[in-house]
Amino acid sequence: MTSAATGDPHPGRRLSRRHLLLAGAAAGIGAASAVGIDLSTRPARSAHQAAGAATAAVPATDGTETVTFYGAHQAGVDTRPQASVTLLALDLNAGTDAGALRRMMRVLTQDAARLTQGTAALADSEPELAVTPARLTVTFGFGPGLVARAGGERPSWLRPLPAFGIDRLEPAWNDGDLLLQIAADDPVTVAHATRMLLKDSRSFTTVRWRQTGFRRTPAVEKPGTTMRNLFGQVDGTVNLVAGTADFDSLVWGAAENPAWLHGGTGFVLRRIRMNLDKWDGLDRAGREASVGRTLAAGAPLTGTHESDEPDFAATTTIGFPVIPEFSHMRRARSENTAERILRRGYNYDDAPASGSVSDSGLLFVTFQADVDAQFVPIQRRLDELDLLNQWTTPIGSAVFAIPPGCTADGYIGDTLF
Amino acid sequence: MTSAATGDPHPGRRLSRRHLLLAGAAAGIGAASAVGIDLSTRPARSAHQAAGAATAAVPATDGTETVTFYGAHQAGVDTRPQASVTLLALDLNAGTDAGALRRMMRVLTQDAARLTQGTAALADSEPELAVTPARLTVTFGFGPGLVARAGGERPSWLRPLPAFGIDRLEPAWNDGDLLLQIAADDPVTVAHATRMLLKDSRSFTTVRWRQTGFRRTPAVEKPGTTMRNLFGQVDGTVNLVAGTADFDSLVWGAAENPAWLHGGTGFVLRRIRMNLDKWDGLDRAGREASVGRTLAAGAPLTGTHESDEPDFAATTTIGFPVIPEFSHMRRARSENTAERILRRGYNYDDAPASGSVSDSGLLFVTFQADVDAQFVPIQRRLDELDLLNQWTTPIGSAVFAIPPGCTADGYIGDTLF
Ligand code: HEM
Ligand code: HEM
Repeated sequence: MTSAATGDPHPGRRLSRRHLLLAGAAAGIGAASAVGIDLSTRPARSAHQAAGAATAAVPATDGTETVTFYGAHQAGVDTRPQASVTLLALDLNAGTDAGALRRMMRVLTQDAARLTQGTAALADSEPELAVTPARLTVTFGFGPGLVARAGGERPSWLRPLPAFGIDRLEPAWNDGDLLLQIAADDPVTVAHATRMLLKDSRSFTTVRWRQTGFRRTPAVEKPGTTMRNLFGQVDGTVNLVAGTADFDSLVWGAAENPAWLHGGTGFVLRRIRMNLDKWDGLDRAGREASVGRTLAAGAPLTGTHESDEPDFAATTTIGFPVIPEFSHMRRARSENTAERILRRGYNYDDAPASGSVSDSGLLFVTFQADVDAQFVPIQRRLDELDLLNQWTTPIGSAVFAIPPGCTADGYIGDTLF
Repeated sequence: MTSAATGDPHPGRRLSRRHLLLAGAAAGIGAASAVGIDLSTRPARSAHQAAGAATAAVPATDGTETVTFYGAHQAGVDTRPQASVTLLALDLNAGTDAGALRRMMRVLTQDAARLTQGTAALADSEPELAVTPARLTVTFGFGPGLVARAGGERPSWLRPLPAFGIDRLEPAWNDGDLLLQIAADDPVTVAHATRMLLKDSRSFTTVRWRQTGFRRTPAVEKPGTTMRNLFGQVDGTVNLVAGTADFDSLVWGAAENPAWLHGGTGFVLRRIRMNLDKWDGLDRAGREASVGRTLAAGAPLTGTHESDEPDFAATTTIGFPVIPEFSHMRRARSENTAERILRRGYNYDDAPASGSVSDSGLLFVTFQADVDAQFVPIQRRLDELDLLNQWTTPIGSAVFAIPPGCTADGYIGDTLF
């Protein structure tokens, strides 16, 4: 399937595949020249400048901090991202019918409710490992297979994403029936919670994939700091902010979703390999041009601070846009403000295959009420043209529906079953 | 090779393989009864008791803390263990002769000296990731192949450990020419340092294996707290303490080692898989008996606090030893005080093979001046009999010589080349 099959919201900005290839080839020898930036005209920036938020001192967690489990929404979506995450996709065993699903989700909900509050699970075999919640959250997601097994209505977007030209998906990292996103500020807490939850789901499911990611530890990365990915970029600047009206409507609000999903949202995971070797071959100006932001501060190329608004109209003395037209930021930003997503990703850095020096990238996680209306148009634009594509390759893809939260009498999924 | 081949320092405590098998079979159905403990006579203990040291409040690092690089000894041995570690074994390429080794170690030393102080490496491609040292240490070790390539004298113990009956070594995790132990309190710092060092060694070496481990994050695990492993055990209580005379003689002191190694030490890594499923099948009393210590506080079964001295002579009312004779602690402790080691291990928790719920264990790292005189006798005793063997399996094994530190004019290995 090509991206053309579903129509393009920005036909005027459509670029031919040939154009893309040409830009790509040029980018390979220096993106700055390929996009015609006059680097000398950009305002000077100091490596010590950073977004104001980055300097706010907040006391580090001592591991006792908890995130509320019960509520209208599941935790782990509007929660400030924790330092460690394990993402698990499980497949339902053949015998796991609607009744079994109900039993399983009751048990897993109870486990999650206890562990997130620093209380050992009911059949916890290592209760001493449970006393340090470290902001643990457990977020459940349902794949199309689970919704079908439960006999529920499938949201129209709950299916594999359309195929994109840039995709090089490896079978190991796609899809699944049940998602568990287990995140905390401590990796021992994540390991223990993961094991307890897997124990209680093992008679109903089989592990399909497991992916582990990290950000800086909480003592180092103060709340309010935007994380850096392994390209060294400030990553996550322009994002939906919890508690705002935009967040409520674009993440939680979904009148079109089936009733069982009200209060829930949609989840996309793209496992995106980052070619650090190739990236390191590019000069600094080329790297900054590829995104449209500086490496030191994460500021737009037309500004000084991370939080500065980019000026896409600004041109250099010789008339080229300061922020390249094909830069990732420019391509990712839609003129349609409904096409926005919550990005909540993690770095990964796994053992490299022999002969290689790293296997690194992003577990690019997003939340949005309607995957087709919000995520797909952005991904399609980036698929058509994005300088960053030269150094990044999507190798895994999965979509889940995140059901709403529950009360202490209920369980996650009780609106579906 | 059997352990009998090299003689047994404790012939009186020798147990037949048959005895071991019997004990093992019994342990499978409940170690407490197998070793005849009268649980009711043990002093009562509260789950809230902990070793005194655990409560000392020490401010968490904010990522700016550094560990001195230059000195008589390499850092990363007597350094309080950091939260994240990557252990790398590299093999020398065919063309890497003594001259190339010298060039490589000069560059790697310089990289390590800079990165550990929060300064970008000379050819650092992501300098923004280098500004957070988070107590980064880089410790180099030389395998027998590297020492031979350099034309140096091999310490007698620098070779693969003797084969043990409990070993189930997998080819992926053994041996190597050059070791890099890269540890910091932050995983992004470890990932960046790992990549910089691998980039500068790539024309001389090939990655043989990479293993990644973790402990609780610094904010959560206060200095002075003994870590817990994924069995939930307090692990590392009885250990050599940096700055003591014992530490100096048993870790750094090695008159018998070749002159180039003076100021250095020996390194052993055992990758030990822990069968959490089987462990979870055992009752709590049986688990405590298997080590001879409580799970709640890590206290000896004859005591109350983690730091209490075990009383191996204490018996229950019906005459059985309170600390089982076959417990891990009892078997690991030698009557010969020269047979002691510095344990500095990490948990690992990797993606499980399909059908399994976890692939977890210990990266059991030890330092000792003489591997044959200190490590091997302990491992041999545990091989002969140790209740814990029912739940643990060594799947990897590697030995390296850790050369001394260097001055700012020198480089790691300059005493050898
Ligand atoms: C490895 C792959 C990727 C990397 C390294 C990356 C990196 C970045 C960076 C550095 C920025 C600028 C700072 C910021 O606002 O966060 C950015 C912005 C953004 N990215 Fe990505 N990104 C990747 C993939 C994606 C994908 C797959 C999507 C969506 C399908 C996406 C959507 C966005 C959006 C919406 C923005 C904000 C644009 C705006 O300013 O309005 N990114 N990304
Ligand atoms: C997965 C495998 C292992 C686990 C889970 C484990 C766990 C433990 C635990 C819980 C203790 C008691 C607390 C303490 O003093 O730290 C201990 C003590 C000890 N272990 Fe292990 N251990 C393992 C493997 C080994 C190996 C392979 C060796 C050496 C070859 C070893 C040597 C020791 C020593 C020397 C002590 C201190 C004994 C004493 O009290 O004098 N352990 N271990």
